[in-house]
Amino acid sequence: MSLRVGVIGAGRIGKLHAENLVYRVPEAEVLAIADVNKAAAEECAQRLKVPTATGRYQDIIENPAIEAVLICSSTDTHSQIIEESAAAGKHIFCEKPIDSDLKRIEHALKAVEKAGVKLQIGFNRRFDPNFRHVREQVAAGKIGEPAILRITSRDPAPPPIEYVKVSGGIFLDMTIHDFDMARYLIGSEVVEVYAVGGVTVDPAIGAAGDVDTVVITLKFANGVIGTIDNCRRAVYGYDQRIEVFGSAGCLVAANNTPHNVTLSDGDAVINAKPLYFFLERYTESFVEEMRQFIAAVTQNKPLPVTGRDGLIPVIMGLAAKKSLSEGRPVKLSEIS
Amino acid sequence: MSLRVGVIGAGRIGKLHAENLVYRVPEAEVLAIADVNKAAAEECAQRLKVPTATGRYQDIIENPAIEAVLICSSTDTHSQIIEESAAAGKHIFCEKPIDSDLKRIEHALKAVEKAGVKLQIGFNRRFDPNFRHVREQVAAGKIGEPAILRITSRDPAPPPIEYVKVSGGIFLDMTIHDFDMARYLIGSEVVEVYAVGGVTVDPAIGAAGDVDTVVITLKFANGVIGTIDNCRRAVYGYDQRIEVFGSAGCLVAANNTPHNVTLSDGDAVINAKPLYFFLERYTESFVEEMRQFIAAVTQNKPLPVTGRDGLIPVIMGLAAKKSLSEGRPVKLSEIS
Amino acid sequence: MSLRVGVIGAGRIGKLHAENLVYRVPEAEVLAIADVNKAAAEECAQRLKVPTATGRYQDIIENPAIEAVLICSSTDTHSQIIEESAAAGKHIFCEKPIDSDLKRIEHALKAVEKAGVKLQIGFNRRFDPNFRHVREQVAAGKIGEPAILRITSRDPAPPPIEYVKVSGGIFLDMTIHDFDMARYLIGSEVVEVYAVGGVTVDPAIGAAGDVDTVVITLKFANGVIGTIDNCRRAVYGYDQRIEVFGSAGCLVAANNTPHNVTLSDGDAVINAKPLYFFLERYTESFVEEMRQFIAAVTQNKPLPVTGRDGLIPVIMGLAAKKSLSEGRPVKLSEIS
Amino acid sequence: MSLRVGVIGAGRIGKLHAENLVYRVPEAEVLAIADVNKAAAEECAQRLKVPTATGRYQDIIENPAIEAVLICSSTDTHSQIIEESAAAGKHIFCEKPIDSDLKRIEHALKAVEKAGVKLQIGFNRRFDPNFRHVREQVAAGKIGEPAILRITSRDPAPPPIEYVKVSGGIFLDMTIHDFDMARYLIGSEVVEVYAVGGVTVDPAIGAAGDVDTVVITLKFANGVIGTIDNCRRAVYGYDQRIEVFGSAGCLVAANNTPHNVTLSDGDAVINAKPLYFFLERYTESFVEEMRQFIAAVTQNKPLPVTGRDGLIPVIMGLAAKKSLSEGRPVKLSEIS
Repeated sequence: MSLRVGVIGAGRIGKLHAENLVYRVPEAEVLAIADVNKAAAEECAQRLKVPTATGRYQDIIENPAIEAVLICSSTDTHSQIIEESAAAGKHIFCEKPIDSDLKRIEHALKAVEKAGVKLQIGFNRRFDPNFRHVREQVAAGKIGEPAILRITSRDPAPPPIEYVKVSGGIFLDMTIHDFDMARYLIGSEVVEVYAVGGVTVDPAIGAAGDVDTVVITLKFANGVIGTIDNCRRAVYGYDQRIEVFGSAGCLVAANNTPHNVTLSDGDAVINAKPLYFFLERYTESFVEEMRQFIAAVTQNKPLPVTGRDGLIPVIMGLAAKKSLSEGRPVKLSEIS
Repeated sequence: MSLRVGVIGAGRIGKLHAENLVYRVPEAEVLAIADVNKAAAEECAQRLKVPTATGRYQDIIENPAIEAVLICSSTDTHSQIIEESAAAGKHIFCEKPIDSDLKRIEHALKAVEKAGVKLQIGFNRRFDPNFRHVREQVAAGKIGEPAILRITSRDPAPPPIEYVKVSGGIFLDMTIHDFDMARYLIGSEVVEVYAVGGVTVDPAIGAAGDVDTVVITLKFANGVIGTIDNCRRAVYGYDQRIEVFGSAGCLVAANNTPHNVTLSDGDAVINAKPLYFFLERYTESFVEEMRQFIAAVTQNKPLPVTGRDGLIPVIMGLAAKKSLSEGRPVKLSEIS
Repeated sequence: MSLRVGVIGAGRIGKLHAENLVYRVPEAEVLAIADVNKAAAEECAQRLKVPTATGRYQDIIENPAIEAVLICSSTDTHSQIIEESAAAGKHIFCEKPIDSDLKRIEHALKAVEKAGVKLQIGFNRRFDPNFRHVREQVAAGKIGEPAILRITSRDPAPPPIEYVKVSGGIFLDMTIHDFDMARYLIGSEVVEVYAVGGVTVDPAIGAAGDVDTVVITLKFANGVIGTIDNCRRAVYGYDQRIEVFGSAGCLVAANNTPHNVTLSDGDAVINAKPLYFFLERYTESFVEEMRQFIAAVTQNKPLPVTGRDGLIPVIMGLAAKKSLSEGRPVKLSEIS
Repeated sequence: MSLRVGVIGAGRIGKLHAENLVYRVPEAEVLAIADVNKAAAEECAQRLKVPTATGRYQDIIENPAIEAVLICSSTDTHSQIIEESAAAGKHIFCEKPIDSDLKRIEHALKAVEKAGVKLQIGFNRRFDPNFRHVREQVAAGKIGEPAILRITSRDPAPPPIEYVKVSGGIFLDMTIHDFDMARYLIGSEVVEVYAVGGVTVDPAIGAAGDVDTVVITLKFANGVIGTIDNCRRAVYGYDQRIEVFGSAGCLVAANNTPHNVTLSDGDAVINAKPLYFFLERYTESFVEEMRQFIAAVTQNKPLPVTGRDGLIPVIMGLAAKKSLSEGRPVKLSEIS
């Protein structure tokens, strides 16, 4: 018996999840798709042979046949829809970030807890085969005690400047994935962050009050030291690499490429560039994320990414913001 | 409007194609699955929500709603079913090899031609992103005039000895893929083959009259020289590499791996082994093969692998067999 | 006509330079070797067929036939010998660091300036083919404007604890090479450092008041952000990698290995570990360093590493020390 | 006490060996250099501070102080000088090939045997760190029983056409190194060769009666099958790769490069081309070859490359020539 799901939000990520559920996750059945732009919901529903399309997300929450909802609407609606869905007894998958306001996040998490429903947050990179392999090897002790973590995460091109203006800033929009990855890989909490940054890609990003190039130092409770570097534009494509160094060895995850062909000619030895962006690189991680959400609900398995996992990276992002603005290391305990 | 397809054969490859059509190729609709083992057909049909399962392939050929058939039954039935399908006006996708008897192949191809239906042969590796990229670069002149071709193709483990006994021998069962690849990459016909071989994997294969380790030299009409090496067992997994060297450069396709993580420890620097076998390595090529077949039929596009492309590698296999047995180079023109 | 050189210090590095001069740099002639341990000087002189061995470095400075000296004695003697050598009109190659006391360094540099002799400091890594290539590509604009620098520099094993106690600490002993590399690669000065560190290798290092694992963030005057990570022990060998990311691309220098052979077996795909330590990795850079010193003197070419290049990394090391101790970013202008 | 050596031939390879002996092999002392072009001998002697230069190689053979000779003169003089040197009781290092005439080789080898002197042949690639590592791993059983050998050996550019005309053909001039490598790596004798070839680089080579692009199949006595591919021009540089596949694994030796830096830009991910030609690629192997020759003589160690190792590849070359000309596999036993 498959899990009956409603998808809220028919934008890029909502369509992606819906398509993955329809074509790649036989254990799920999509009953309805909602979007404030009703035409978008209808277009998607028709293409995927989903029976219902609606302009009101409440239609999904109120539908008694639906057991779980995917919240893929704009960030400012997440906490509200989480609370309503929880109240209606639906299990919830919610895209990151839950919210940029800590109080609203905590309020939403309490509603989830009270309702006893499951909530998974959309940190899809945890399901990437490279990074999952790194995590497994670290957890298996293959590199002994971890000591240094290095995350490189660079986008191929910056988002539209309109998006930058409302994104909550690079730390909450882009680095948040790396904050989650840092916690996931090391299995310990970060206690302090120090952020350095500047504008090297587009002055308009600076004019919007943000930076586009950052390096963040992380101190973990278990003594590990981490660094994250981000840039809004890497001309060679999506650069997603990770390194964990420990007392007994080192794990390095390289980029993925569209092919493994090398061309040697009179000028150079040429390899493929990395896969272009997250849709290409994380294709399989998005599918696996859905499979594990469905399995967590239907087989009562542990959630791979909990509500708390959605909360902490937001705290880290706010701490990084404060660090950059004040030019000093900031403890996570300073944020509340 | 999607193409209505019937699948003949619910063994490993038939199930794979059926599943790909159902889940990954929205432009097709699988109406029926047939297998002499009716239970196998029923199990597959039920799992994939295919409406009809049958123990008789004729039910598919006689079904007027079905526009195209996939022939995934045992090799000895291929040419017969091709002829019947063609006579019924169905478009045909047939697994390789068409047959091991040249006369039967030619008879079947004539039936196809007469009926005016489309026939695509299952050389799925042409759709592998690595090899397709090599072909595209060669065709684009990136390495100038090709001069040397090297194909390495080694299986992780030999098939059951019962299979070896009826497979037609390593050249027709295993090397046939490489013969096709050689023609595809170079875009010229092979005129002579020289095969050397021995038994290094399992004496039982030798006892069955076959070899398990071979090196074949190819002379192409355009002057290119090629070599293929095959072995029935590579302990490190499926080894599928290709190199084309030309007057202006060289293309090398490396193996694919399940992840791109390197572990450096006190002993070594360790990378992932190649993807285990063809189901893992050629996952995407099987999907793309189906997409292009469906597109060839519905949009009247050129077939990516024609009936003639099915015939020639069989001739090459027979020539290789003769070469090995007689210890001398054999021209393809000697085979008829 | 070759340059007549005296070598002061017949320890590991003194012997290395003497041997390189004798066997690999025909443009130099080693006339004498001095060491407080006279037997060590004699053993080295005999082996290399150097005419004179002495227990007094003054014998070298006072020798009118000697045109240039190599100062390879213990760090605490460097500034004194520089001053005496300069006063005697000798050109000077001095191992890093010049001193750990800024005033003494400045005093020595003034003596050099006054005497009008040449002084090159032993930052040999600038002559490593990998790093030199990175510098050349950066300088040629191949990656546009640099934005992020990442240096990984990990030793295979910590030095004896007795050495750690007198080394001046990890920043002045080990990171100092990376501080120099950072300036060399980016071609701009660092204005602020932030150092985080801990003891993960050996508690005895902590007991000696030092750390063995550090991550340092660098802010450059031109806006580049850099990070350096160091560890006193990488079980897989000497880990010396560098990455410079810029607006038009990224340069990554990988480790060097003793061979380029890959072994694929039933367990893994195995590559060689990095070259074990600096003697193996920087073999060629030590030779090239000597060649360029000799050429700078004999052909009056620009010095590849000046006295000022010896001073600034010490300032950076002192700033890093202060940063680690005070838990805050420290500007280089705070150090004097 | 070092070994006193005379060098016969001051061409490219003679100068290289002389320089290596002088600068890199302290256990040898070069007493004299001879060349029919006396000025060349003098220039070399002066540069390397070698006491004697002469236009007559007999001066070296007749010099009682000289214990060993290096024969680096033109191929047609090798066997004669070997015989005279042996008669004079000198140990001999002789460049490959000994001769292109089997009778003359055998005559020379008998003279060596009779005189009881040591004779090492200049197959320097055996001393290359990559290939030596492959050999050691094969010999240590790391890949179980070898089954397939693949050698790729391509020059960056063809030699002058005048050289091609007198070189004895590609098999005796170029492939001969690969024939030696095949025997060295597999540790078994080749019993049959099959050669295919053509002219793809320069029609003038064809006009001179030679080919410039060949693929050779080797059958070994122990059942291993090998292939060698050669081309006189690889536009990307000197391509020297080797693969040995066995029952328990596979060894692959990749090319060496001048640096390990990767440049990723908007167009591609670019690595260094292979080291340009044999002087760059085999720098260390030439030094090690001399060290082992000197050690074989002075410490009475086994010769790493014997006179018989010089003979067999010539037989293989003649067999390959016959195979190409007759279009059939040729057994080595057919050559005499």
